[in-house]
Amino acid sequence: MILDFWLERTMDNSMRTEDLNWMDVENYLKAEDRLILVLGACEQHGYLSLLADVKIPLALADAASKQTGVLVAPPVNFGVSPYFMTYPGTLSLRASTLLDLVEDLVRSVYGQGFRRLLVLNGHGGNDAARARLVELGNQLPELRLSWYAWWQSNSVEDFAARRKLERGHASWMEAFPFTRVADLPEGHKTVPVFSGLLNAAQTRQVYGDGVFGGDYQVDDPVMQELFDVCLADVLYLLRFN
Amino acid sequence: MILDFWLERTMDNSMRTEDLNWMDVENYLKAEDRLILVLGACEQHGYLSLLADVKIPLALADAASKQTGVLVAPPVNFGVSPYFMTYPGTLSLRASTLLDLVEDLVRSVYGQGFRRLLVLNGHGGNDAARARLVELGNQLPELRLSWYAWWQSNSVEDFAARRKLERGHASWMEAFPFTRVADLPEGHKTVPVFSGLLNAAQTRQVYGDGVFGGDYQVDDPVMQELFDVCLADVLYLLRFN
Amino acid sequence: MILDFWLERTMDNSMRTEDLNWMDVENYLKAEDRLILVLGACEQHGYLSLLADVKIPLALADAASKQTGVLVAPPVNFGVSPYFMTYPGTLSLRASTLLDLVEDLVRSVYGQGFRRLLVLNGHGGNDAARARLVELGNQLPELRLSWYAWWQSNSVEDFAARRKLERGHASWMEAFPFTRVADLPEGHKTVPVFSGLLNAAQTRQVYGDGVFGGDYQVDDPVMQELFDVCLADVLYLLRFN
Amino acid sequence: MILDFWLERTMDNSMRTEDLNWMDVENYLKAEDRLILVLGACEQHGYLSLLADVKIPLALADAASKQTGVLVAPPVNFGVSPYFMTYPGTLSLRASTLLDLVEDLVRSVYGQGFRRLLVLNGHGGNDAARARLVELGNQLPELRLSWYAWWQSNSVEDFAARRKLERGHASWMEAFPFTRVADLPEGHKTVPVFSGLLNAAQTRQVYGDGVFGGDYQVDDPVMQELFDVCLADVLYLLRFN
Amino acid sequence: MILDFWLERTMDNSMRTEDLNWMDVENYLKAEDRLILVLGACEQHGYLSLLADVKIPLALADAASKQTGVLVAPPVNFGVSPYFMTYPGTLSLRASTLLDLVEDLVRSVYGQGFRRLLVLNGHGGNDAARARLVELGNQLPELRLSWYAWWQSNSVEDFAARRKLERGHASWMEAFPFTRVADLPEGHKTVPVFSGLLNAAQTRQVYGDGVFGGDYQVDDPVMQELFDVCLADVLYLLRFN
Amino acid sequence: MILDFWLERTMDNSMRTEDLNWMDVENYLKAEDRLILVLGACEQHGYLSLLADVKIPLALADAASKQTGVLVAPPVNFGVSPYFMTYPGTLSLRASTLLDLVEDLVRSVYGQGFRRLLVLNGHGGNDAARARLVELGNQLPELRLSWYAWWQSNSVEDFAARRKLERGHASWMEAFPFTRVADLPEGHKTVPVFSGLLNAAQTRQVYGDGVFGGDYQVDDPVMQELFDVCLADVLYLLRFN
Repeated sequence: MILDFWLERTMDNSMRTEDLNWMDVENYLKAEDRLILVLGACEQHGYLSLLADVKIPLALADAASKQTGVLVAPPVNFGVSPYFMTYPGTLSLRASTLLDLVEDLVRSVYGQGFRRLLVLNGHGGNDAARARLVELGNQLPELRLSWYAWWQSNSVEDFAARRKLERGHASWMEAFPFTRVADLPEGHKTVPVFSGLLNAAQTRQVYGDGVFGGDYQVDDPVMQELFDVCLADVLYLLRFN
Repeated sequence: MILDFWLERTMDNSMRTEDLNWMDVENYLKAEDRLILVLGACEQHGYLSLLADVKIPLALADAASKQTGVLVAPPVNFGVSPYFMTYPGTLSLRASTLLDLVEDLVRSVYGQGFRRLLVLNGHGGNDAARARLVELGNQLPELRLSWYAWWQSNSVEDFAARRKLERGHASWMEAFPFTRVADLPEGHKTVPVFSGLLNAAQTRQVYGDGVFGGDYQVDDPVMQELFDVCLADVLYLLRFN
Repeated sequence: MILDFWLERTMDNSMRTEDLNWMDVENYLKAEDRLILVLGACEQHGYLSLLADVKIPLALADAASKQTGVLVAPPVNFGVSPYFMTYPGTLSLRASTLLDLVEDLVRSVYGQGFRRLLVLNGHGGNDAARARLVELGNQLPELRLSWYAWWQSNSVEDFAARRKLERGHASWMEAFPFTRVADLPEGHKTVPVFSGLLNAAQTRQVYGDGVFGGDYQVDDPVMQELFDVCLADVLYLLRFN
Repeated sequence: MILDFWLERTMDNSMRTEDLNWMDVENYLKAEDRLILVLGACEQHGYLSLLADVKIPLALADAASKQTGVLVAPPVNFGVSPYFMTYPGTLSLRASTLLDLVEDLVRSVYGQGFRRLLVLNGHGGNDAARARLVELGNQLPELRLSWYAWWQSNSVEDFAARRKLERGHASWMEAFPFTRVADLPEGHKTVPVFSGLLNAAQTRQVYGDGVFGGDYQVDDPVMQELFDVCLADVLYLLRFN
Repeated sequence: MILDFWLERTMDNSMRTEDLNWMDVENYLKAEDRLILVLGACEQHGYLSLLADVKIPLALADAASKQTGVLVAPPVNFGVSPYFMTYPGTLSLRASTLLDLVEDLVRSVYGQGFRRLLVLNGHGGNDAARARLVELGNQLPELRLSWYAWWQSNSVEDFAARRKLERGHASWMEAFPFTRVADLPEGHKTVPVFSGLLNAAQTRQVYGDGVFGGDYQVDDPVMQELFDVCLADVLYLLRFN
Repeated sequence: MILDFWLERTMDNSMRTEDLNWMDVENYLKAEDRLILVLGACEQHGYLSLLADVKIPLALADAASKQTGVLVAPPVNFGVSPYFMTYPGTLSLRASTLLDLVEDLVRSVYGQGFRRLLVLNGHGGNDAARARLVELGNQLPELRLSWYAWWQSNSVEDFAARRKLERGHASWMEAFPFTRVADLPEGHKTVPVFSGLLNAAQTRQVYGDGVFGGDYQVDDPVMQELFDVCLADVLYLLRFN
């Protein structure tokens, strides 16, 4: 039944670049100028998949694409994660690299006629890219940009507050069925207290298993509801009102 | 009396670079390895000074310096403000420039023996610099970094919540006696509703006078209290526990 | 039966980052220091998938991983394709961006203990990254690097020569079952004759459907054989003799 | 009386960005398109303030602004000073950072309608910025640029020659009342003899207290005269003939 | 007689920038918009001149210029040679530097009216510049670019095949009378076998004297014929059909 | 007889990279760690060769090499000349490109054991490179750097003053027999008066034929004397006292 939920939302008929050739995209552009761009990260997520920050926004993108037919670009699999470099499997870009990368992608699709881009960001460290996007927005006429960082949205803030759940990196909040790659601990992790801007060594010392705190997991129906809350936001943003 | 408040907190005896020569700093380093680095912006702040984002963290720095004797570096007078480029007087750096600038400053002082740096950031667009700072923290042994963005702090969030005041760019919250350069409107501005990542033209269309919403001003004692709330945070962070 | 071939080679038990958490990678590093890094492109491939240049090296990586247990990093989904910018769906990086990206990935994993990296490159335009890799090889002690561009290998040159097949972008050579997203034309395309370094507009004029020439497709068993020829090369290189 | 001289020239009614909001600048631009941009440095100046290279051109800017009403942008508080890195309190930018910074400032104000920019440079190491300015001058139609490095001017060369004073970093020449932060030595320092391009360690070895040679100080009226000589140059350049 | 061959082809009447002043080039541009740009390298070439990769394409440029009157720009004397850094006398550019350099040269001459540029590349490591050239080709209207790497040409491949000669760095193939600076060994060097992307230390270990293999030298008439084969290619490309 | 002068000073036995192979340089480094690096420009020089700024320092380098046996690296044929872009034949680098280029050259030779580098700069616009050189001097232990810009030297200032000759770009001062490519005008050009930082269009308007002013030419023996004055400086600097 859980599987049904995800299949229904993300499988089949999403418009992913990998299933198309250039002629398909040329046809697409005759009637449509929207694109979803997924920014992720490959970084420690405690017990969860190293690619959680790709998988979550990509699942949202697929689900939104299924309902709207909007094309989803291939995900950017790496983000800015210097604080997690001591956790093996973290592949971090310098902020400057990410900005250049995002610029190149935007300029590429703008040149082909895309005009409304929704960036689904899965990773907080990628926020720096917003500045470059606005710089591009100042240069490229008629370009419209939107940015969605699901875990920072008002909807999710409310969602968590209603359930008295703390939001935190690698906690329940990111523990979707499709990001789990191992058994999760039971119970709750106290949010570590610290001040300062931690480097990678300090981060590991403070956070240990990499979870920032809160419940390790919640029941699947809660996660399904969370997903639908975010999906509603994405669908709203895709209207580009 | 208002003047007294500010004079008492910020005047005299703060350790500003401009009042020192290199021999003074060499002496300072024999007993101390802390430094306050102020990141600001030169950008529209509605009716307030274009340099509000420099003046506020610099006032906090001066006040903290007066109590602790910690040296204050010359402020970075420009930040990342691409969304305000249509408001005359906004001088914006590309994100990449700010990152390089911050790196150069950190490497300079690290090379001379400074080891604990508190960055007092006055402008949200400068957040991108955090990534570069962590990258530096990974490279420079024994460097300890702290970052304080006063308006995003829990203390100020609580402060505003208690008084049922909305926090917003260029609103009451930044209307300190020392950032006012013109009469402020009475009353309250409704926060504009929009979605998307606004470019500079759209920003001006949405925000008009440049204030993001909330009360335009509050009474001076409230501002004094706000200042002291932030100052307490800064003093705490300067302990580098 | 065709499906069997691919399932047998690529499914199950390949070590992909997305299926692991950081603890898994930490364990992996206790006994192993190899990593496969896939460089791809999102660019026109005639009638084939826009992500053909990711899918092919990734399939090789999965197949090699299945046999050797070597970890596969998330693929770089974009490459340097300025000449294809006029074909919608092509997302091209500047060469400088790709170089920085590759450097960041290499430095990340090197810092965690990886020492032998096999780059499986799927796209000719990415060749520029070789220079940066050698620069890194000069800086990072004990790092060993290998690079495999399957379609340029001697093995594939021989393979094609034996069958009197011409090798060319988006032709039979890249038409694996898993890169096909539409029906392919029958027959043969004559290789266009031109001289000069084509820009994107000229490229489209010269190449039309985007195929560089040769047979559009060959029988599946030939493709299976081709895959196994390349896989043998990859397995050899993974020995890092 | 000395104070009178400086007050009269620099206080009140200079147009500094910090005293204005964006509406003021918008009004300003209706009748005026000139701007003064101050490039400084935070570096050792012997017994003088670490910010001497900001204070001197800024004082000239204020004085010129008072007479002409031309707007003064916030100063760039850092310059290119790699040779002084061994003197504590020196915060040096890489040349590349300064160039990017200057470009960002120029593009910002150009976009808002400023067309005549006078750069008052306080520091020799910033000369590299001239090249970037000319590059911008080639790209931005109708932009007019002027550059003034007071201590290199013919006027000051003559001034010093007439008085048989040697010009040198951190000597009498920069010892204005407003740059003094400590007692100055009496007498004269012999200019050290050396050849080669000194790095920071060699510079400190050669220059010791950081003064490049010549008289440590001269009488205040001489300094007042020097200031007026420079001010006359600035006022002339502001005419943009 | 050998000398005659080279004199006849390269001496006198080639159009080199060094023999012209700007007025000459202004006149040239009234009737012509072609330019030859030579990319070289300063790197080990076994027993041959460190500047072999400049000398060969420059000789071709001179010879072609003599026949066609096309202007030859000053050569770029350095290329991307990180793998040879352990061989003294190798001066290598980072790939990113070469790309910027090539961009600057192309933009300079484009701005003056040159529209057809033939790049004669002498060094394999410079291939990365092709990507930047295509990027420029996408930006600069009417610019036409051609690229010739003589040793990779079909003509030279055929030439070597016909004579059963192996092509290899620093072997007979580059041993023109004008690149010889020492006696060459007799005989043949076996091509070393290795896999992987060699760093500079490994390269020297594998290649020893720096020659990649094949005959060390062939008779002069063969070299003359080789030169004429390449020259024919260059002359063909200069027609920009 | 004039020819004799130049032949005697520059021909034969200078140590130029082009005449050596890597083994020669390896031998050289056993007894010597000095290198001469020539920075030039390809830019308008009035009636003189576009490569005057390469030819002059290279002639000095050759002459000094002949007397001392110090190796001369291949010249950098391009410099920073944005102000001359309107004069055809000017190939200008961005300042940032030159800095990166110079860094690459210095790091290359430093890695091979060179420790004392004399930069012979032929072009004023290249001054920006000094900052990068000092940055490198701060990073590379035991590196010693020297910089000589012949026309700015005290020796040449005195030389010109004694003869009551004005120094100026493209005037008599650069009119050596080996930089002349056309007849020179007789007489004297008045130095144009202007203020401001000229862009390329303004430069051509102000300077016309490109000569900055002064006598167009002087007698050969004066030029020979000038050359010897500079050569003496170079020889002195090569001692690296």
